[in-house]
Amino acid sequence: MRAILLVDHGSRVDAANAQLGDVAQLVARIAGDGTIVRHAHMELATPSIPEGIDALVREGATEIVVVPYFLAPGRHATSDVPRIASEAASKHPAVNVRVAAPLGVHELLARLVLVRARE
Amino acid sequence: MRAILLVDHGSRVDAANAQLGDVAQLVARIAGDGTIVRHAHMELATPSIPEGIDALVREGATEIVVVPYFLAPGRHATSDVPRIASEAASKHPAVNVRVAAPLGVHELLARLVLVRARE
Repeated sequence: MRAILLVDHGSRVDAANAQLGDVAQLVARIAGDGTIVRHAHMELATPSIPEGIDALVREGATEIVVVPYFLAPGRHATSDVPRIASEAASKHPAVNVRVAAPLGVHELLARLVLVRARE
Repeated sequence: MRAILLVDHGSRVDAANAQLGDVAQLVARIAGDGTIVRHAHMELATPSIPEGIDALVREGATEIVVVPYFLAPGRHATSDVPRIASEAASKHPAVNVRVAAPLGVHELLARLVLVRARE
């Protein structure tokens, strides 16, 4: 079973953490039934990345893509999240865990900027 | 003339600041010739928000939408950027300056997560 774990920094503000759950639900709806989509936070809030990976494995995930929900390829997205994910994945040698690129520069983001500008 | 000023936090890393310029260029291409699109940084890098607004006015902008390039509606996007933009706008009473919502939760972001997950 394919799975996506959407990971942001994590905040002390509950509403900010909840927003990632909303995005994960949107992703799940678009991805369709063949993909489990969950979210986790790098720090400051739960579920943590290891908790998220453990839960996905319990749900039957055999292939997990961790997607850093960060705009820029900074230290968190390119170093901290991959390191934590790799450590957590070592507990599940039968599961293929990889880390995707952060959101970066993409036409979909440019289109969203225009949506917000026109609201 | 309508204009968009895309504003992020600003970084000490040049590549991170340059990336916002790339997004602004994408936005400009999609927006078409009727809209000037420029970028600025809230702090740590130039152009600053006041410099960005001054430059747009010099280019003939009469209506400026400042779009916070932030995923979440945190303090920077909802308080700091609007305050700085408002102070900068007070120098140009003939120009209509408003601040848009940050990127927030949107289907376009969910679709981008899937793009990154599948790469």
